[in-house]
Amino acid sequence: MDNWNYRTVGIPDSEFIRGEIPMTKEEVRTISLSKLRLKDDSIVYDIGAGTGSLTIESALLASKGRVYAIERETEGVDLIKSNAAKFQVSNLEVIQGSAPKALLDLPEVDRVFIGGSGGKLEEILDVIDKKLKAKGRIVINAITLNTLNSSIKKLEELAYDFEICNIAVTRTRQVGDYQMLQGLNPVYIISGEKG
Amino acid sequence: MDNWNYRTVGIPDSEFIRGEIPMTKEEVRTISLSKLRLKDDSIVYDIGAGTGSLTIESALLASKGRVYAIERETEGVDLIKSNAAKFQVSNLEVIQGSAPKALLDLPEVDRVFIGGSGGKLEEILDVIDKKLKAKGRIVINAITLNTLNSSIKKLEELAYDFEICNIAVTRTRQVGDYQMLQGLNPVYIISGEKG
Amino acid sequence: MDNWNYRTVGIPDSEFIRGEIPMTKEEVRTISLSKLRLKDDSIVYDIGAGTGSLTIESALLASKGRVYAIERETEGVDLIKSNAAKFQVSNLEVIQGSAPKALLDLPEVDRVFIGGSGGKLEEILDVIDKKLKAKGRIVINAITLNTLNSSIKKLEELAYDFEICNIAVTRTRQVGDYQMLQGLNPVYIISGEKG
Amino acid sequence: MDNWNYRTVGIPDSEFIRGEIPMTKEEVRTISLSKLRLKDDSIVYDIGAGTGSLTIESALLASKGRVYAIERETEGVDLIKSNAAKFQVSNLEVIQGSAPKALLDLPEVDRVFIGGSGGKLEEILDVIDKKLKAKGRIVINAITLNTLNSSIKKLEELAYDFEICNIAVTRTRQVGDYQMLQGLNPVYIISGEKG
Repeated sequence: MDNWNYRTVGIPDSEFIRGEIPMTKEEVRTISLSKLRLKDDSIVYDIGAGTGSLTIESALLASKGRVYAIERETEGVDLIKSNAAKFQVSNLEVIQGSAPKALLDLPEVDRVFIGGSGGKLEEILDVIDKKLKAKGRIVINAITLNTLNSSIKKLEELAYDFEICNIAVTRTRQVGDYQMLQGLNPVYIISGEKG
Repeated sequence: MDNWNYRTVGIPDSEFIRGEIPMTKEEVRTISLSKLRLKDDSIVYDIGAGTGSLTIESALLASKGRVYAIERETEGVDLIKSNAAKFQVSNLEVIQGSAPKALLDLPEVDRVFIGGSGGKLEEILDVIDKKLKAKGRIVINAITLNTLNSSIKKLEELAYDFEICNIAVTRTRQVGDYQMLQGLNPVYIISGEKG
Repeated sequence: MDNWNYRTVGIPDSEFIRGEIPMTKEEVRTISLSKLRLKDDSIVYDIGAGTGSLTIESALLASKGRVYAIERETEGVDLIKSNAAKFQVSNLEVIQGSAPKALLDLPEVDRVFIGGSGGKLEEILDVIDKKLKAKGRIVINAITLNTLNSSIKKLEELAYDFEICNIAVTRTRQVGDYQMLQGLNPVYIISGEKG
Repeated sequence: MDNWNYRTVGIPDSEFIRGEIPMTKEEVRTISLSKLRLKDDSIVYDIGAGTGSLTIESALLASKGRVYAIERETEGVDLIKSNAAKFQVSNLEVIQGSAPKALLDLPEVDRVFIGGSGGKLEEILDVIDKKLKAKGRIVINAITLNTLNSSIKKLEELAYDFEICNIAVTRTRQVGDYQMLQGLNPVYIISGEKG
């Protein structure tokens, strides 16, 4: 499954080359991409890109645009590159570094996904606000209450239109003849649009 | 927002013309479409199409294909047509009737979504199995344990590869300065692929 | 079922006399009571007591103690009294008024449940902290992110030991032969103990 | 915390001596005990008793009754005995063996909890039905769809009144200054009463 020949997103988690780095799981990734409302020619930042699963899917959709994947860990940077090679996408750039500093030299942007913020979410949102075009969109995945609260506080301050949902996915796992219920960690997805 | 100019799915629920007919909500619709793995030229059945939210989004993705929306209620049929007009999609056909009977004269199919089965899921799956091409995919939304069980039983019998997930979405609703938590009904999504 | 002859809590919602007032649902009530760790002789405040479901169950457990139910709405006050009569509990007092003001003349307390705070949670927690005995416990139900955050902020400030859980209950409802899945609104339960 | 001096259930998971054996988590245990509606003098079976967490809490509540813990693994049997000693409860009996066989010589019963059934749920329910007094109650925890379905099928066949709920607990875990969301596996709780 090295080419993803579908118009829809949702590459199975197991198709990505993975290390010890956390990964945005298929269903949460699918909804996050949906809330981003990508276009063919979108310029995208993927901040805290991890294994690059969202980077790859964004790049496949924004085939005439460009995706900037920001990741501070060397292992993550290598995984993103490996996955880009596996899925044959080249309209992306991997930047090793931490946001917001790593964002300063990047071009203006249409869509921003924040999967990880290293405790600097508010500073990151301040910098993004200067780079984000009118009607541009930001989607944040929060796995802590702190990130959820910082997102709300800052998006209110910046007067973005935003909505929040929480996604709790349970998968079944076949064990012998049994379908066992396995709960994944719930994720808050905050989606904002610049006025 | 009468044109949906994005490469991603997930048209907000409020954008659809709605009646009293139940509707597949945005996040569950997004994941269901993802599990369908639509292509440009897919032939799709949408069984129990309701307001047509999934019909419209499928038709936008399968722009060179064709979507057959099966719906027994006149109100639903009218809503699907109204929504097709609103979103300017024409590669679809609305068929008033009940599955499996309404399926008999339809052409072979690549992708099938079942949002409602009127208590005849097993018969419907038997008929679909004859119409579905190799590697074709079926996605079922189950809001009852009965539909979940019938899906499992029949897909096992037909020897399809399948997986199950349950999606519980909580949205926040702004009430004054407060973000209230509102739980939507959880939905099981069963996704099968023909061997 | 006018006498609850069980050692366990969890009176079914339908057994309470109910009006338009919101009610702590059975499963969330059961866990909230558990986190309160009531004793035979506990002195309890139930703040925002609503229909009195938690008041009644607390009074049944703390049979040698006393429960003070604070409720500002006349409809609520009447419902609590009606439910107390129905379940034949008399070791409780209903106080019409708003916290924190309504708490000022109350005696010292062992256990406090906060089901509603009328937007004054932080002031309420400040007053409770003065009334609460050492090793006393507070349990808060939050149905908004704001209440959740105020709880965390204030309990950290007061240096209480606390833990948080979120409970999402889905019930099945029998419709004909079908078991429909119905999601209740998720509730955060914050449980703190005074050092 | 070797004596549990509270009228409420919900001993924290960490208070039990634990091995590799699965354990009914605090919040699910609390609701399961609530649905059992225990009395002072209840005779209880705890089938698939594991570490004995529900055995211990049942025995504390049914202080004039008796709890029969059935467990096939030696490690489990030892853990139940260790936990009984730790919490100083003696109105219980640990039976090493598998249900339904291990039930045959037991006395009539008021309340039955089934935490594990080793794939023999339907046979177990048939045997229990013969032992269970009128108005007796059965509570089943299902972590697989198969157990859920067998429960429904058999309780319908036996014409028990029953209800089903699913409990999805998310806990927060403090990591540095952060409150991380951790989803536990959801559990279906089926509660039936004999006519």
